[in-house]
Amino acid sequence: MQINPSGIWNDVDIIRKKSPLVHNITNYVVMNNTANALLALGASPVMAHAEPEVADMVGIAGALVINIGTLSDAWIKAMFIAAARAKELNIPIVLDPVGVGATSYRTRTARELIHTAPPTIIRGNGSEIMALCDRDVATKGVDSTSTSDLAIDSAMILSRELGAVVCVTGETDYIVSGESQVSVKNGHPMMPRVTGLGCTATALCGAFASVNSDPFPATAHAMAVMGIAGEMAAETAKGPASLQVNFIDALYQLCETDIQAFFKA
Amino acid sequence: MQINPSGIWNDVDIIRKKSPLVHNITNYVVMNNTANALLALGASPVMAHAEPEVADMVGIAGALVINIGTLSDAWIKAMFIAAARAKELNIPIVLDPVGVGATSYRTRTARELIHTAPPTIIRGNGSEIMALCDRDVATKGVDSTSTSDLAIDSAMILSRELGAVVCVTGETDYIVSGESQVSVKNGHPMMPRVTGLGCTATALCGAFASVNSDPFPATAHAMAVMGIAGEMAAETAKGPASLQVNFIDALYQLCETDIQAFFKA
Amino acid sequence: MQINPSGIWNDVDIIRKKSPLVHNITNYVVMNNTANALLALGASPVMAHAEPEVADMVGIAGALVINIGTLSDAWIKAMFIAAARAKELNIPIVLDPVGVGATSYRTRTARELIHTAPPTIIRGNGSEIMALCDRDVATKGVDSTSTSDLAIDSAMILSRELGAVVCVTGETDYIVSGESQVSVKNGHPMMPRVTGLGCTATALCGAFASVNSDPFPATAHAMAVMGIAGEMAAETAKGPASLQVNFIDALYQLCETDIQAFFKA
Repeated sequence: MQINPSGIWNDVDIIRKKSPLVHNITNYVVMNNTANALLALGASPVMAHAEPEVADMVGIAGALVINIGTLSDAWIKAMFIAAARAKELNIPIVLDPVGVGATSYRTRTARELIHTAPPTIIRGNGSEIMALCDRDVATKGVDSTSTSDLAIDSAMILSRELGAVVCVTGETDYIVSGESQVSVKNGHPMMPRVTGLGCTATALCGAFASVNSDPFPATAHAMAVMGIAGEMAAETAKGPASLQVNFIDALYQLCETDIQAFFKA
Repeated sequence: MQINPSGIWNDVDIIRKKSPLVHNITNYVVMNNTANALLALGASPVMAHAEPEVADMVGIAGALVINIGTLSDAWIKAMFIAAARAKELNIPIVLDPVGVGATSYRTRTARELIHTAPPTIIRGNGSEIMALCDRDVATKGVDSTSTSDLAIDSAMILSRELGAVVCVTGETDYIVSGESQVSVKNGHPMMPRVTGLGCTATALCGAFASVNSDPFPATAHAMAVMGIAGEMAAETAKGPASLQVNFIDALYQLCETDIQAFFKA
Repeated sequence: MQINPSGIWNDVDIIRKKSPLVHNITNYVVMNNTANALLALGASPVMAHAEPEVADMVGIAGALVINIGTLSDAWIKAMFIAAARAKELNIPIVLDPVGVGATSYRTRTARELIHTAPPTIIRGNGSEIMALCDRDVATKGVDSTSTSDLAIDSAMILSRELGAVVCVTGETDYIVSGESQVSVKNGHPMMPRVTGLGCTATALCGAFASVNSDPFPATAHAMAVMGIAGEMAAETAKGPASLQVNFIDALYQLCETDIQAFFKA
């Protein structure tokens, strides 16, 4: 598979026209940012986590995004209910295994989730993807201690085992689907200094997967848009907070010529 | 009733002088933004949702704002306790029925709330007000699929039934009290692309209702201030994130001449 | 003890080099801002509150920050588990008694916390420190009704009783350790109009305490950095939202000459 600007733009254009509903069961830290990123891109975000309503909400959504960043038992139950319903309805599931490896609670939860209701797409940093795959890895909280390229093997194993697209983000983003692999080289070194931009990348995968029936290019397109908006944002950013503001504004302004000018595979 | 700049300014001026405590039981996505909007305007926000403390917190507040955006059973219990206490103490209650119609859980909760402890003010988008009134309406998550004018009938029915002021926001905001109705035409088309500006409008109703004993003009004044600050913010915004930043700054800077220059009824 | 720019800079420099993990059990309103402040400074934040994982997370952290801003029973249990584990491992604990005095639930919780697992550092506004010490104090939600100097006596009593550093923030910040006391006069009057900058100050204490084994200068250095970044931010801020953005950017850009130029004891 080849990723190119016109394919990326095509997905963005459909998201803006259709405004797909993306149902997020995500962490408290990033909810505001991911909702704003989805809105700026053109999608319609909803956050809902109560057991009595998640199945209903999945039923009207174009994608389900599950992020375990601030999980607790009640939320885990809702994640399983929502994921099961998404499977029934054939709605794409995107998983962000935040901090897997840092505590056994996170590792166990994420592994149960991927085996009970295999996600369509998994996106994490190098440490998380390696820990999810049960590889030896030093972890430190929710920030990666591994570069993304060290995690490619783990991504391939997970992808084959689960039939999922696995995306490892870092200086280079690797998107793996079975034996196939593409990379995206967009992005800016200041981006990891903004909390939740990884979670935002995962949320954008939901938007792209809701309009593109093939999750492999959908994921790569989402990563390209993340990185391109990040580079556009960095041009005038004075630090991580103005980078975050500029990033959301860039998602809103993004046009086909920006993608052509910035895209790096 | 007529809404005019000097009436709007009078309320803003009292909020700044008295700094009323506004108790919010609201959703995770918007807490930070609504707290900042209340602080920028001059009010004093507090977020508290635990069953053991909500009644105490209501007891020292000037208004109670209930927003069901990310509700769960424990939070619903707290909402009922807080609303009952507010009724006892004659403290104004403002309800934001976020996403009513999207799931039966939200619809049921909101209807129980309005019938158990009728709010002083209800603010929602067109879809939400119609769904709350049991009208046929297509819903999609938390974003409206109806324009505000289609919901005026529903607002009038709810207002008469509950004795509440009902506010439907959209391109034009309609504020209904029994047979009376006023409209506010301020605002900017980019505002719905910022998550939680509707929730912020609801929170501001709490601030205005805490200083103006008549909730009808209080609600209209809050909507005017929202729309005016949004228009001021849009003048230099490059997208939804800089709009949000400028909006909070505009609430802080807002002076009587701004209201005179921008107000559109 | 004397606070000076080179001592402040030394701590900042170590934080940037070591990127210590700071485990926060904090409130929903400020999570995003405090995570971003810690990242901008150079630390690595993690938010985790589930009973089954907090002890594990404390075990890999350099400091534990407990903030009771939006507490509930489940979170209180996690706070006690995490604090007990931090005591066992000799990891510094920083407590922010948000809104103590506003409800008996908060007051009782904070007092139980400080007596069960005495924190290394307590940071609050004047009202909170006085209420925590059982002094007569009028409270209003989470904003202070007392100036910081009125609370110095309470800070000294708490410090002696608990063996903790107690920090009262306000126009002047007072840092008390037993009979010793230092003050920091940096900051800007617009800072209290941004929600959660007090909570951010507390989170920064965690970062400084994780690299400086003496919590007395660590706390003073954290307050100096808060105030200096606030003054730098205010230079071009148009209101509280641009102040918040500039503040995070200033934490990221902060260099030794800024500290030399701005520090006021």
